[in-house]
Amino acid sequence: MILDICLSPALYPFYKKENDTVIVVDIFRACTTICTAFANGASAIIPVADIEEAKRYKSQGYPVGAERNTKKCDFADFGNSPFDYTREKVEGKEIVFTTTNGTYAIEQSRGCKTLLIGAFLNIDALAKKCIEIGERTVIICAGWNNRVNIEDTLFGGAFAEKLLIENPVNFDSDAVKIALQLWQSAKHDPLNYIKDTEHYQRLIDNKAEGDASFCLQQNTINLVPYYDRVEEKLKID
Amino acid sequence: MILDICLSPALYPFYKKENDTVIVVDIFRACTTICTAFANGASAIIPVADIEEAKRYKSQGYPVGAERNTKKCDFADFGNSPFDYTREKVEGKEIVFTTTNGTYAIEQSRGCKTLLIGAFLNIDALAKKCIEIGERTVIICAGWNNRVNIEDTLFGGAFAEKLLIENPVNFDSDAVKIALQLWQSAKHDPLNYIKDTEHYQRLIDNKAEGDASFCLQQNTINLVPYYDRVEEKLKID
Repeated sequence: MILDICLSPALYPFYKKENDTVIVVDIFRACTTICTAFANGASAIIPVADIEEAKRYKSQGYPVGAERNTKKCDFADFGNSPFDYTREKVEGKEIVFTTTNGTYAIEQSRGCKTLLIGAFLNIDALAKKCIEIGERTVIICAGWNNRVNIEDTLFGGAFAEKLLIENPVNFDSDAVKIALQLWQSAKHDPLNYIKDTEHYQRLIDNKAEGDASFCLQQNTINLVPYYDRVEEKLKID
Repeated sequence: MILDICLSPALYPFYKKENDTVIVVDIFRACTTICTAFANGASAIIPVADIEEAKRYKSQGYPVGAERNTKKCDFADFGNSPFDYTREKVEGKEIVFTTTNGTYAIEQSRGCKTLLIGAFLNIDALAKKCIEIGERTVIICAGWNNRVNIEDTLFGGAFAEKLLIENPVNFDSDAVKIALQLWQSAKHDPLNYIKDTEHYQRLIDNKAEGDASFCLQQNTINLVPYYDRVEEKLKID
């Protein structure tokens, strides 16, 4: 098995290969929120990259999650906090979803063979899935406006470590080694480690720092959302 | 003082700000080689991004250094090893230079206000220069075909550490913190650390691994090459 990590969506053209399984990761918070919505019974999530498209869906009666720059958009039903997506609100529903970075990263990579959504919440289920698929796996860190961030890189390192424990993995990529080194420095107290990041400051500024510890929980969810290219929706099996 | 690090030339549009001092870094080997050529008396270096342009200069009588994929180009006088650029061969000369990544990174960033060439060889001189200039400093790691690499990221971390020791530096950037973490893991034995990188393997494949220890030496050179936008040449004061 081959693993690679792309530290920004803008770098994916330089990492892309045929038949890749891509894991899109946006720890704070889009991918954590997508996993949570599915765990609470959402039937599908329609990722859209721009606000106007989200508004069109809204006018057709869809429930819409929309965030820009860490804030919930006024017209939307939900923001980007996983706590917004309760069972009561999402069960059985198709939700339209647009965020600053996460849905952009999905947009950038949806030409790949298999697109999965990754978070600390489902990291073991994700590793199992990638091993089953057996193709080269590339983690795409959503970052922030194409800038590299710590929390998504940490996820990459944690995922690499998971794979290393039980599998022969080809780790020739420098980016994987950088992520693994970072994770090994942080893993004994990830919450404390990420308090020094750009995005934690944004969460504080928006009174959402309580989301951080939720987003760093491991293996609370045993499902892997994937992108259905025909229906253009995120689904679970 | 503000420091930021761009882990690939392809990410520079997302890090760019007005009045930036940009340090282009390609530790293995272009920037190390440029510094060495100046230390051995080269009067200027004309960086060109493509081979055809380098050939045109060659036909006009210029000495040319040209490398692609770690190999010296057949038509060229020099490859990309710092050992090629001896005083005997370069003193008093203007040299045309094109490499896989380093000259590409220069090309991508030459719109910035001040463009400097960085290597471990001149790291202290570089820090001093950036402090004198006093603008936001952005390190652009040349990487490998726009992919992130360890050795240039390590330089970024080492540079951040240098600045931290004596100056109040704004380190809000996650990328700077990632680089600093990597350097702190590697600095006790950088040569051993980089033996596990993609590019060290390429150096071995091309019987150039002896270049690595040369490129990791610190402060053997007290000069800072800069890009003269009028003459379109690298020069030293």
